[in-house]
Amino acid sequence: MHTYRSHTCADLNKDNVGETVRLSGWVHRVRDHGGILFIDLRDHYGVTQVLCDPDSPVFKDVEKVRSEWCIRIDGNVKARDPELVNPKIPTGEVEVFVRDIEVLGKAEELPLMVFGDQEYPEETRLRYRYLDLRREKLQRNMTLRSDVVASMRRRMWDKKFREYQTPIITASSPEGARDFLVPSRLHPGKFYALPQAPQQFKQLIMVSGYDKYFQIAPCFRDEDPRADRSPTDFYQLDMEMSFVTQQDVFDTIAPVIAGIFEEFGGGKKVDAAADWEQISYKDAALWYGTDKPDLRNPIKMQVVSDHFRGSGFAIFAKLLEQDGTEIRAIPAPTGGSRKFCDRMNAFAQKEGLPGMGYIFWRAGDNGEMEAAGPLAKNIGPERTEAIRQQLGLDVGDAAFFLGGKPASFERVAGKARTVIGEELGLTDKDRFAFAWIVDFPIYAADEETGKIDFEHNPFSMPQGGMEALEGNPLDVRGYQYDLACNGYELVSGAIRNHKPEIMYRAFEIAGYGADEVNKRFGGMVNAFKYGAPPHGGCAAGIDRIVMLLADEANIREVIMFPMNQRAEDLMMNAPSDPTSDQLMELNLRVIPQD
Amino acid sequence: MHTYRSHTCADLNKDNVGETVRLSGWVHRVRDHGGILFIDLRDHYGVTQVLCDPDSPVFKDVEKVRSEWCIRIDGNVKARDPELVNPKIPTGEVEVFVRDIEVLGKAEELPLMVFGDQEYPEETRLRYRYLDLRREKLQRNMTLRSDVVASMRRRMWDKKFREYQTPIITASSPEGARDFLVPSRLHPGKFYALPQAPQQFKQLIMVSGYDKYFQIAPCFRDEDPRADRSPTDFYQLDMEMSFVTQQDVFDTIAPVIAGIFEEFGGGKKVDAAADWEQISYKDAALWYGTDKPDLRNPIKMQVVSDHFRGSGFAIFAKLLEQDGTEIRAIPAPTGGSRKFCDRMNAFAQKEGLPGMGYIFWRAGDNGEMEAAGPLAKNIGPERTEAIRQQLGLDVGDAAFFLGGKPASFERVAGKARTVIGEELGLTDKDRFAFAWIVDFPIYAADEETGKIDFEHNPFSMPQGGMEALEGNPLDVRGYQYDLACNGYELVSGAIRNHKPEIMYRAFEIAGYGADEVNKRFGGMVNAFKYGAPPHGGCAAGIDRIVMLLADEANIREVIMFPMNQRAEDLMMNAPSDPTSDQLMELNLRVIPQD
Repeated sequence: MHTYRSHTCADLNKDNVGETVRLSGWVHRVRDHGGILFIDLRDHYGVTQVLCDPDSPVFKDVEKVRSEWCIRIDGNVKARDPELVNPKIPTGEVEVFVRDIEVLGKAEELPLMVFGDQEYPEETRLRYRYLDLRREKLQRNMTLRSDVVASMRRRMWDKKFREYQTPIITASSPEGARDFLVPSRLHPGKFYALPQAPQQFKQLIMVSGYDKYFQIAPCFRDEDPRADRSPTDFYQLDMEMSFVTQQDVFDTIAPVIAGIFEEFGGGKKVDAAADWEQISYKDAALWYGTDKPDLRNPIKMQVVSDHFRGSGFAIFAKLLEQDGTEIRAIPAPTGGSRKFCDRMNAFAQKEGLPGMGYIFWRAGDNGEMEAAGPLAKNIGPERTEAIRQQLGLDVGDAAFFLGGKPASFERVAGKARTVIGEELGLTDKDRFAFAWIVDFPIYAADEETGKIDFEHNPFSMPQGGMEALEGNPLDVRGYQYDLACNGYELVSGAIRNHKPEIMYRAFEIAGYGADEVNKRFGGMVNAFKYGAPPHGGCAAGIDRIVMLLADEANIREVIMFPMNQRAEDLMMNAPSDPTSDQLMELNLRVIPQD
Repeated sequence: MHTYRSHTCADLNKDNVGETVRLSGWVHRVRDHGGILFIDLRDHYGVTQVLCDPDSPVFKDVEKVRSEWCIRIDGNVKARDPELVNPKIPTGEVEVFVRDIEVLGKAEELPLMVFGDQEYPEETRLRYRYLDLRREKLQRNMTLRSDVVASMRRRMWDKKFREYQTPIITASSPEGARDFLVPSRLHPGKFYALPQAPQQFKQLIMVSGYDKYFQIAPCFRDEDPRADRSPTDFYQLDMEMSFVTQQDVFDTIAPVIAGIFEEFGGGKKVDAAADWEQISYKDAALWYGTDKPDLRNPIKMQVVSDHFRGSGFAIFAKLLEQDGTEIRAIPAPTGGSRKFCDRMNAFAQKEGLPGMGYIFWRAGDNGEMEAAGPLAKNIGPERTEAIRQQLGLDVGDAAFFLGGKPASFERVAGKARTVIGEELGLTDKDRFAFAWIVDFPIYAADEETGKIDFEHNPFSMPQGGMEALEGNPLDVRGYQYDLACNGYELVSGAIRNHKPEIMYRAFEIAGYGADEVNKRFGGMVNAFKYGAPPHGGCAAGIDRIVMLLADEANIREVIMFPMNQRAEDLMMNAPSDPTSDQLMELNLRVIPQD
């Protein structure tokens, strides 16, 4: 027989009755029922009930085992009495009578119980991560993550993509976030950086003629901690293709993402990839108040300025006399009660706005529809009715109104839409809803100085190419896109600007001269001068996808060995003090802190 | 039609004759044959011959294109004249008559030609890596590497292993090589380290109950450069299993490795995994003079001390009077000529030994076998004949002899064995020959001080466990193993020491107290105190495997974006000077160099 096991703890069933077996695993739980010891023996695969009565030659040894000891037992498989069968586990029909035991690894007193649902402080969980990781939820999350990543690879291979590894110790690339630096020993005073993303390398791979690239890529950003973000590194499904349009990228990656959600979404409805809407950045802002809308929520905001222009509601009427202002409505089907409307108004106030005007429609005393709320009174029945018809609302529904320059209220409007959808139960929790957000503006003007700078990624191709760059920069849209799912940005990408002359011009508009471009992105821009193909791609956030699939709100629930929020590894003791030899070799001195 | 291509440059054949097609790719080569322009248009997939005669509406534009311009053409597919068919390429039956062209990316004058076999200095190749990578050999090597890694993953998944990612920004682990350090911004003066290998993490994953782990893992070592080693990072197929013996690890990984060599070995003979010999470290040293023998070479050394004891060959006879000395023979079938023997003797002298004695057997004047060489004379015919019989040699063969303490000549003996095998054509170049090297000693004594220290990996389980540690440390063997292939170490691994009490004792023997162990390996040793399972595994060097399969001697030929030997990335300009802001944020000062 094998030294440690003839079966795993998930293997045995009625067919094994009568066999002598060997199992290894952890003592999940021990119970003493009238002198008979019942042990739930657990391994990665399952749990088997093992029992030991005083007749067993090893009763005295079995008596000693405690929770989370790792043991090996030999025993005889017997069928359970019918009334004791546990249909919830595959081994529930049998139990194993222990005849021999070997303690493989004892456990000291446990700082964290594996059995049961007790909550522990994060510090305890991370310090004893090896115990935390034994718990059922984390076992499930970690295997889910592994299976998701494996499935991504299979799906990309099926689409004839190859995975190429790009450098992890490389050059600093001033792309937005802060780099992690790595001091060079061979070149004193110089530093490498860990890549924020393989962006430049994947574009270089396209220039090198490899046509289709992907990578499950570690990305490093020295960012200040946040619950849904790892403070050090995260993983992306990164891909890039040559000789493609934006639509080609969508047609390639959408089935991969949809397939993953279908495979691992636990039966929730997944929008078919072919049905994913393409919503312009501008429309997304208008309709949803965000560029990552949650489309499980059916509410779509609308512009209703005309109904308020010159109306009796002086606040909005006056507002509309200013340039660039708008009134927008958030329809709230089934929200037609004063109580609900007041609560939403209070919500807007809490978010820093003066409030949200509202109208709601109810059945009046005479049984006819009646529009209620101060706003309705101010603008009168005709305008109120026109609004109702535009929004397609009815008795029992409500609408909320926000006015001003969109930038001043859009964010809150988006949040209000979410809260309204949630509170009214309009948001379908059993669905993964996707849409492409497209036509991102290339530039934005600083609100105070008016200075033009890149709004998003400086490497995207402007729609209309060089010609577009001759007009108003703020009108230039890029071939740049995001995939929104349930209120999160899952994927982000672009068709790249592969023409050096357009790139230099695009940077010039943002105030960066050719020298600056060459200095910052020389590796890539130089490459573009030697026959660069048109190319584009995207990157999907793996941690985020697994969080959605596992229904977890904290990224640390889907990472095997996460840092805490202070970017420390409490188990391994990182970061730690360097030795003076190490510092000397690196030619560095730590500046003493006051 | 698609914006860029209706087909790739490998797609067209006789079936497409008459079609109008669109192709995109690079101008591999342009030739002007009597006013007609022939372009070999190349993409990742292949080459298509494209031609343009003066009747084409775009002749003037086509005339302008140069090597490595990226272009899109539309044209008509025509069959080539039978005598012009090129059977070497899949598109060799057709050519495309250009009717339209678009220049997608121009190229400046090329510092490196993609077409042809011209050699370039490494600096040029790395600085313009995107051009170098377009060349046929690198396209082949990079896709090979990608396919090898993909196949490894498939094979591990088939064996029910899951891939789990371990941290890349983590704690310094004093395991042998030098760490790359990463300064922490949030914790001034403290440093993270990049992992030399996921060793501790994979063991923690076992303690966490995940049973089977693998990872295509990046490993980081700040090592001084060498041709066959990347100066910064390298990749391993890293795996670990719980509840296993050494043989289980072999049975798991051997078919994976053998399968990879069968799949990608280009038809060379691959030893069947089940046939891989297990050779003890001690025997490997004796038979092959190395712990990574090249078994394509059939020569096996033998101890022949007894034949020389008290013999007329005074040098050896005297040597043998000292403790710990031996005489070993290198049989050299077909090496039986004085010329060859003298050359090998000279080789040994060049390697720093006094020389190698030899005997060779030839047909004497009377047709009878005759042993030649000074050594044969000195020891006389009886001993000579006994040696011949022991070594199984015959007319036309030779044997070389080395004597002394094995440590003084073993390395040279191993090299001599290799040279003899090569020169005599005994080494089968069309074979991948594998053997497990087992039973590595846990400890070695410093030659001068006699101090005991770990010889290899301090985490291996000593054979015999705690009891074995009570005897002579130098006799303790570990469950530790390497896989040798064609003279290289491809895989290295061990059954781990998972018992804290044995680990503390093992370290104590090497002079490390419990405090030191806790400080250096606290994360892992603490985990072992909470029910650690027996576990073991190994790691296979991916760069090395791909080098063997691609038949390359330099690691930079199998890495997409390698550093040069000075650990610089000339294309991306790494490492580089940090900004003073960056240094200030990290609380560091660079010590000025004299």
